[in-house]
Amino acid sequence: MQSMDDLFYALLQDVYFAEKELLKILPKLAQRSSNETLKLAFRDHEDETSEQVGRLEQVLEIIGREARGKTSDTMVAIIAEAQRMMDEIDDAAVRDAGIIAAAQAAEHYEIARYATLLGWAEHLGEDEIVELLVETLEEKRHADDLMSSIAEGGVNASASERPEAAAEA
Amino acid sequence: MQSMDDLFYALLQDVYFAEKELLKILPKLAQRSSNETLKLAFRDHEDETSEQVGRLEQVLEIIGREARGKTSDTMVAIIAEAQRMMDEIDDAAVRDAGIIAAAQAAEHYEIARYATLLGWAEHLGEDEIVELLVETLEEKRHADDLMSSIAEGGVNASASERPEAAAEA
Repeated sequence: MQSMDDLFYALLQDVYFAEKELLKILPKLAQRSSNETLKLAFRDHEDETSEQVGRLEQVLEIIGREARGKTSDTMVAIIAEAQRMMDEIDDAAVRDAGIIAAAQAAEHYEIARYATLLGWAEHLGEDEIVELLVETLEEKRHADDLMSSIAEGGVNASASERPEAAAEA
Repeated sequence: MQSMDDLFYALLQDVYFAEKELLKILPKLAQRSSNETLKLAFRDHEDETSEQVGRLEQVLEIIGREARGKTSDTMVAIIAEAQRMMDEIDDAAVRDAGIIAAAQAAEHYEIARYATLLGWAEHLGEDEIVELLVETLEEKRHADDLMSSIAEGGVNASASERPEAAAEA
């Protein structure tokens, strides 16, 4: 990995893997969410993520490299956290809050990666790639904002209730 | 982990661990950076990160919990990536670009965590904690912006040069 082209490809492989992992876990996140708005958001996000994978494949085609992901240990760790939140929290509202936390860690990881790739594409003079990455980056930021507003719009309030009766469960 | 209080503490432990790992790697990042502005930014960031660790300890004291981190596999993976960037890229300008990419992944992870904690603290009605978290979150966002501007301000341009002579090195 000695040139910007190599680094660019390595990061594309990382985020390609990350998106595909996200795509696999989204149906589970939807299923385990109790808040209806959250459930719906994860379902909608599946289509969006598929399109983002498609855009990455376009980018890889433009640079003439194989569309093959490379394990991102960071994304693996975030997905494992999401799985723990789903498995280990019994209270539905608290579990929703935990699921949102993990989902936002995933979104932010991808925001960081796409922002870096975008900066590099600009300096490599790859205008077509810039356009594709800008589109995805905006969607990622919007997805993160949406998670925040769902948390603020009810999940956090429900999860923060401290029912006297259920406290010792 | 069945209440919002438990989840809040678990995430605090995660980010406490993450900050301390970041603190350990910052001197290495500074040392391995060739761009002088980048080197300086990592050095400055060390003091800031120490203060952020201090703020987390204040938060933990307020909620009456022990200041003990808990391994964040996500942060471990990001640090490992940073280490690979430092070790495996010979070209100084490309290495700087790789180091910035890893540093921004770390910043974004922490931005996600602090944003989540902040939302929860608001709903738990913990005003003093909110104040501490807001301060850190703003610094993290600023640190991320600074990395972007250093990348745009020279690192990416240097790294994207494709010298004919050195191409086959």
